[in-house]
Amino acid sequence: MTRRLVIIGGDAAGMSAATQVRRLKTVAELDIVVFERSSITSYAACGLPYLVGGFVKSPDSLIARTPEQHRAKGIDVRTRHEVTAIDVEASTVTVRDLDSGRESAVHYDELLIGTGASGVVPKWPGTDAKGVLQLRTLDDAAEVERLLVAGARRAVVVGAGYIGLEVAEGLLERGLHVTVVERLDAPMGAVLDADMAADVAGAMTAAGIDLRLGTAVTGFTVDSGRVTAVQTAAGPVEADLVVIGLGVRPNAELARAAGIAVGESGGIRVDDHLRTDKPHIWAAGDCVESHHRMTGRAVVVALGTHANKQGRVVGTNMAGGDAAFGGVLGTAITRFQDLEIARTGLTEREAEAAGLAAIGVTTEASSRAHYYPGAEPMKIKMVVERATGRLLGAQIVGGAGAGKRIDVLATALWNGMTAAEVAGMDLSYAPPFSPVWDPVLLAAGKAASEV
Amino acid sequence: MTRRLVIIGGDAAGMSAATQVRRLKTVAELDIVVFERSSITSYAACGLPYLVGGFVKSPDSLIARTPEQHRAKGIDVRTRHEVTAIDVEASTVTVRDLDSGRESAVHYDELLIGTGASGVVPKWPGTDAKGVLQLRTLDDAAEVERLLVAGARRAVVVGAGYIGLEVAEGLLERGLHVTVVERLDAPMGAVLDADMAADVAGAMTAAGIDLRLGTAVTGFTVDSGRVTAVQTAAGPVEADLVVIGLGVRPNAELARAAGIAVGESGGIRVDDHLRTDKPHIWAAGDCVESHHRMTGRAVVVALGTHANKQGRVVGTNMAGGDAAFGGVLGTAITRFQDLEIARTGLTEREAEAAGLAAIGVTTEASSRAHYYPGAEPMKIKMVVERATGRLLGAQIVGGAGAGKRIDVLATALWNGMTAAEVAGMDLSYAPPFSPVWDPVLLAAGKAASEV
Repeated sequence: MTRRLVIIGGDAAGMSAATQVRRLKTVAELDIVVFERSSITSYAACGLPYLVGGFVKSPDSLIARTPEQHRAKGIDVRTRHEVTAIDVEASTVTVRDLDSGRESAVHYDELLIGTGASGVVPKWPGTDAKGVLQLRTLDDAAEVERLLVAGARRAVVVGAGYIGLEVAEGLLERGLHVTVVERLDAPMGAVLDADMAADVAGAMTAAGIDLRLGTAVTGFTVDSGRVTAVQTAAGPVEADLVVIGLGVRPNAELARAAGIAVGESGGIRVDDHLRTDKPHIWAAGDCVESHHRMTGRAVVVALGTHANKQGRVVGTNMAGGDAAFGGVLGTAITRFQDLEIARTGLTEREAEAAGLAAIGVTTEASSRAHYYPGAEPMKIKMVVERATGRLLGAQIVGGAGAGKRIDVLATALWNGMTAAEVAGMDLSYAPPFSPVWDPVLLAAGKAASEV
Repeated sequence: MTRRLVIIGGDAAGMSAATQVRRLKTVAELDIVVFERSSITSYAACGLPYLVGGFVKSPDSLIARTPEQHRAKGIDVRTRHEVTAIDVEASTVTVRDLDSGRESAVHYDELLIGTGASGVVPKWPGTDAKGVLQLRTLDDAAEVERLLVAGARRAVVVGAGYIGLEVAEGLLERGLHVTVVERLDAPMGAVLDADMAADVAGAMTAAGIDLRLGTAVTGFTVDSGRVTAVQTAAGPVEADLVVIGLGVRPNAELARAAGIAVGESGGIRVDDHLRTDKPHIWAAGDCVESHHRMTGRAVVVALGTHANKQGRVVGTNMAGGDAAFGGVLGTAITRFQDLEIARTGLTEREAEAAGLAAIGVTTEASSRAHYYPGAEPMKIKMVVERATGRLLGAQIVGGAGAGKRIDVLATALWNGMTAAEVAGMDLSYAPPFSPVWDPVLLAAGKAASEV
């Protein structure tokens, strides 16, 4: 008899899982039904800031695969369908057709929760005004475009994390006057140590951004339903357009209401096979918590790269295979104009919070041999455990060629290497690509000598 | 009493060692005398092709530190001094002052052999003609410059390995008609598998190089002491300028003559502390053989990056410390115009030669998200051990951003990871830097699925 897999959420995790299951099981063996609240599937949310900035020209190019394409592969995608409840005992979900308003119960043999995350929006007065938005969907990007075409000149970005930085860059590129308001004392303050974040602040200011650090937003001034200013503890900032980029929270309420365990992090609790604590119910993507390899703690990291990996892992398992998700290091990369910014593992502050005695050692280096044209400066900060010399984390800020070097350090962290071991590795060298001591080796050597 | 360290050879290994010893020991504790045959120290031979190509403007910029600068740091550098013999019993070296012709015996308490390597030049008739040269020294680069200024139009490069490729690019950049003659059936034929090498051949030909593969050089046609053609098994090739780039051999004769063990590879045999088999005699750099981490065999890899690392390791040890050189993976990178070429570990052919049952799996990927402008295609070939899934090697050929990804795979090899483990790692992702599955993850995943 054909068994049925129900997937809640048709984005990265859900559709990767569906695709992987379809590779391993025929339609006759396992029916796959995906319920997706919006009208699209598999879109690259990470590309939205670059769409706004005009670096990416077509919104359609951000859609990796349409519902029709998935259907052609034997995956029954039902868009504009929202799952409103899970009945663990009955093995059913309650589904509402958002167009007709009809509700029905659908049986599952296996259930995957891939509900994603939602942007954090504090209950500030005026948040609902026209011109105040997040950048989470293609509709959001289209709304920004409408506001720009309608003549918006002054943009305020609330939050200077990844999304805030990327949106600010994009709006600047479009010729707007951009103010970034950030509660912390530094941009990227939650993910970089202050010394590294200072370089990001410098680049933002140099590019003409009005960067207001240590400034709390308290609400919005609204005129005829339209935002005209952002109110802050330090006074109002005029705005025709406000983008809130304060990070995201897992959409775990559906799971919680069904009695499925949710961790302290706010993400759905899963084991390394992405099983929840209820039989035949799995979860993957931005809605789950993941094992952090450096601290051993459960953390929520909402990133497309994890969602895709987890989708494939859980797809393999739901099809009867045996795959494990290896956890996360907190690796991330972004850029602000020509400045590349990357991190992996723990910052000095995070190491301290995790109870690890660590030191931070910063090295300045060059992306190429000093005599080769186009060499770009970079700074690498290594965070090293005092007692063992083990590398706990790294941060990189620098010019072209700097950022992706974080992957070498992520690989080192993944394997539990010490700084001294990293310094001895056989990395590639030629003058157009690196100095004879690659910046990674140089930084590791310096860190090893100071532990 | 002050002890004396004698170093034979004032380039990367020798001077790195001297510098490291000086960090750890005062002049009163340990006297350092360096004998260097040429008149310069610490020059970046790897930069010579880029000097010839005009990418690097000043020859002086290739000299990392002059003899005077070393002397100012308490290192007694004696240029134009050649060591002609080592007396292991007496703990002395015989030194000839190349200007005065005088010989003397110099006592050592510790001796470091850093004699480097010499270019391979077969005994072809006409090799001594004007216009036939290698590119090993700044003098060689100056001679190329003189020939170009004197009107050389047709260049022949013998050998299509790293140096041949780089010199060919440089001479093409300078407007010459360039022919590359290679005995093997592919450029980079000794370091890439044939399928990857084909892309390099394509790029060379597309750039206008007359690439003659499978063609053996037999000698040179000489007129009035000046080369006019390269003779090959397939007929003559006219030439005003010939650069021989056939790789190098360790300068181990001095050691061998003193009774110091030399390995089958031709390099001086050292342990992981860079001790030779004779007490108080050490060796480092291009003249030694190194432990290959994938095969366990002793190999000669002449590269500045190893010479610098070994210099630091041996310097630490000679100063009474305890450091080990971790071995090599055969990691290397170069480029031909916009094509980046990199490798680490074993090729399929090398794995076979080492008696390892392996498969090669090639993946085509993109350097950035498909929708992000400037995404460059790349090919990654993974060589994986059949029985274990262990990664044995990798090769990358592709556009900007392709080559340095080899370092992630070198780090994976260094740690003995399987392809499946690599595929699960937490590498950085953002649209301007990579697709959501970084090419490295994609290639590892494909390789894992095919083992």
